[in-house]
Amino acid sequence: MLAAVDAPTSVHIDAQRLWSSLMTLAEIGATPKGGVCRLALTDLDRQARELFARWAREAGCTLRVDAIGNLFARREGREPALPAVATGSHIDTQPTGGKFDGNYGVLAGLEVLRTLNDHGIETWAPIEVCVWTNEEGSRFVPVMMGSGVWAGAFTLEHALSAADREGTTVRAALQAIGYAGPTPAAVADGAPRFGAYFEAHIEQGPVLEASGRTIGVVTGALGQRWYDVIVTGQEAHAGPTPMDLRRDALQAATQLMQQVDAIARAEAPHARGTVGYVDVFPNSRNTIPGRVTFTVDFRHTDDAGLHRMDAALRAAVQALEDAHAVQVAVQPVVYFPPAPFTPELVARVRAAAGRLGLPHQDIVSGAGHDAVYVARQSPTAMIFVPCKDGISHNEIEDASPEHLAAGAQVLLQAMLETAGRAADEPAARLHHVLHLGRRRARDAVSAAPSTSPCPPQLERHQQQRP
Amino acid sequence: MLAAVDAPTSVHIDAQRLWSSLMTLAEIGATPKGGVCRLALTDLDRQARELFARWAREAGCTLRVDAIGNLFARREGREPALPAVATGSHIDTQPTGGKFDGNYGVLAGLEVLRTLNDHGIETWAPIEVCVWTNEEGSRFVPVMMGSGVWAGAFTLEHALSAADREGTTVRAALQAIGYAGPTPAAVADGAPRFGAYFEAHIEQGPVLEASGRTIGVVTGALGQRWYDVIVTGQEAHAGPTPMDLRRDALQAATQLMQQVDAIARAEAPHARGTVGYVDVFPNSRNTIPGRVTFTVDFRHTDDAGLHRMDAALRAAVQALEDAHAVQVAVQPVVYFPPAPFTPELVARVRAAAGRLGLPHQDIVSGAGHDAVYVARQSPTAMIFVPCKDGISHNEIEDASPEHLAAGAQVLLQAMLETAGRAADEPAARLHHVLHLGRRRARDAVSAAPSTSPCPPQLERHQQQRP
Repeated sequence: MLAAVDAPTSVHIDAQRLWSSLMTLAEIGATPKGGVCRLALTDLDRQARELFARWAREAGCTLRVDAIGNLFARREGREPALPAVATGSHIDTQPTGGKFDGNYGVLAGLEVLRTLNDHGIETWAPIEVCVWTNEEGSRFVPVMMGSGVWAGAFTLEHALSAADREGTTVRAALQAIGYAGPTPAAVADGAPRFGAYFEAHIEQGPVLEASGRTIGVVTGALGQRWYDVIVTGQEAHAGPTPMDLRRDALQAATQLMQQVDAIARAEAPHARGTVGYVDVFPNSRNTIPGRVTFTVDFRHTDDAGLHRMDAALRAAVQALEDAHAVQVAVQPVVYFPPAPFTPELVARVRAAAGRLGLPHQDIVSGAGHDAVYVARQSPTAMIFVPCKDGISHNEIEDASPEHLAAGAQVLLQAMLETAGRAADEPAARLHHVLHLGRRRARDAVSAAPSTSPCPPQLERHQQQRP
Repeated sequence: MLAAVDAPTSVHIDAQRLWSSLMTLAEIGATPKGGVCRLALTDLDRQARELFARWAREAGCTLRVDAIGNLFARREGREPALPAVATGSHIDTQPTGGKFDGNYGVLAGLEVLRTLNDHGIETWAPIEVCVWTNEEGSRFVPVMMGSGVWAGAFTLEHALSAADREGTTVRAALQAIGYAGPTPAAVADGAPRFGAYFEAHIEQGPVLEASGRTIGVVTGALGQRWYDVIVTGQEAHAGPTPMDLRRDALQAATQLMQQVDAIARAEAPHARGTVGYVDVFPNSRNTIPGRVTFTVDFRHTDDAGLHRMDAALRAAVQALEDAHAVQVAVQPVVYFPPAPFTPELVARVRAAAGRLGLPHQDIVSGAGHDAVYVARQSPTAMIFVPCKDGISHNEIEDASPEHLAAGAQVLLQAMLETAGRAADEPAARLHHVLHLGRRRARDAVSAAPSTSPCPPQLERHQQQRP
């Protein structure tokens, strides 16, 4: 299935071994409907971490756990001072989650390690596989907690203090499962950056399946603006109240809900607009609604687009208030800036898929991923593979072994090309090792990990994101 | 305030006594916010019934309780064989109900009795004040239970078997409070019909307040068609799913919701259309809704209009299914035919308001009332008075003493004119006593109460309602 067209392509991952690992990991927290319930920092999470750690040790890796419980399996490189070329994802799941979300990124990374071992390949840069803590956020918020602390999106203390519904804090849960590690969690506190970070993930959307392509070359992640909207009218009896004396909050709200959709379509194909949550008060069959609360989720590839969507929403609100006897309150609740990935790494993923003869296309990530936070501190790219019917966060989440293997093969090639085969000539190595990573490595040699600002190259990378 | 323009007008109700009775009754089940919580067939309901019964006995009435707990206070007429001229309403409330809904109709009736006593007036026909069981339906369904059994809308057994959330049946609750009465509950089982039935009620809507009028001359009750609508699309991640690959159940549903409003406005001022209840699945901020369930409440003054609204809804559903990749299921759940009240009695209410110099207007009842069921078996009319901001079923429900007194005065005059003053000439009496009631009385003399079909006059009345 995987065409061997040049030297790197001759190194093949073991599709069956990857699938078998996925199925074995999925037994921990398996649900009767074929999914997985493995909430972050539960004993099931511990069991899954132990399984991964055993596999990684068997593959010759050393392990490191940081203060937020992120787990790093390291396969040493010929030049240990080079920043690692890393991959990974998460192994916590939604309460009714599937077998592939997150788990695939971690085990595709494991499969890369194992394949390098199979072929006795030494890389110039170290290889690391990351298991980021609590990506899902089902038990503890904020979501993408481990990578968020690493990247400085919020502080370690903020994350450790988060409590679940029973009042158990992240700090206590980490200690309970033995994953309150000794190394710094945040780059700002000295956690090492990566020379490059690749994350393989099921698409969690319908685009690849609809286009019939196997590999999504992820160019970046959509920026997001979330809002809570409250429309207030006057509840009244449905029977006695004539149409012209109503202040129906729901009828007004439906106009705004439609605007959310229309605003996103006006920015197609770069935007999304979704009303996912609606609460109607008093929600009684024969009472005109007096208050409707709903959410708005806007996403766009670039920040100027998000600004236009924000302005359009506020104009729609104003027009609605002018036309109806209702009040509308719009409360912004979340802002994630768009996160374009690193063009050199994106190009490397694209080229690998091309060399392998795999149908591929550029795609944006609409969802959040650990890679989106990692991209704030290190060069990053992602690889998507199709999932059945675009369904994720669901026990029926499914993906084909062939697609999963193809994604892991692309991951292997992109990582290997970036880390550099030590068997290659030193001169060739310069083409392979990401220049950003190399410069970072020189910084690391000349200075211990510090809380100093990003090196100039990373600052430039940061500034690319508006 | 009340202008005396002819003989009946010289008989005035006691506004202060009426208000005082309302406030005293409102103490039973009073809530801290100034409302009343007195659910049907609770001990509070028993206390309220006992208070009314004591007042009625003090006013010289005999009391009768039927098998569904309906309570009738009877002031005998000169001709006891004549069918009673009745009034009343209910004294159960919503969990967060007000002081006036229902209670006003019962106590306005009591005030009529007391005023007749004050003036030593004997009527040809007996006067009865009804306390109908469980009009609200908050604890037991169906709503308007006592009048519904009386009128044959459903069987006594069906009503007695209804259970509340704790599993207590109406049968058990009636026995517990001592109101499982001995007389037949249904007209079909021999419960006497009325010569005429008048019900005074707060409007529970904004029309009278908006027009600045004191008396609503209720010409009938709107027919109702209720539906459950389920729109099924496909839930999906809000981020990864492009706008053109969505099957967003909520966006489709909002179009139907707007149609519900538009369909009613197209029939203005005769119709109402309301979406009061909405359930979105899975109702998560960043998930495109896969299923939306909502209710439709259509009301119209005539059945042909209801049919047009039904057809328009189904056409809108068809158009939506054709245009969107969603399925729509429409399930009718309730149908009440329009219930025009008896023109002679409506005219009598209108004339009384006119003679009293009270600003009045014709109005339809959008809500259900015991009178709507009573109208299926006896000539019926209603009198509305304004309530503050049109608000009812709420602890802040309010009405002015002046308006309540005006409604009771209209009630007194309409009832007195219908029952006939025994002091008047016998010839005059023929003008006063409703001819339908007189014929019914002759039937009653020639035959014991039976389960026989309606007399011809009532059949005709029934047939007026399509």
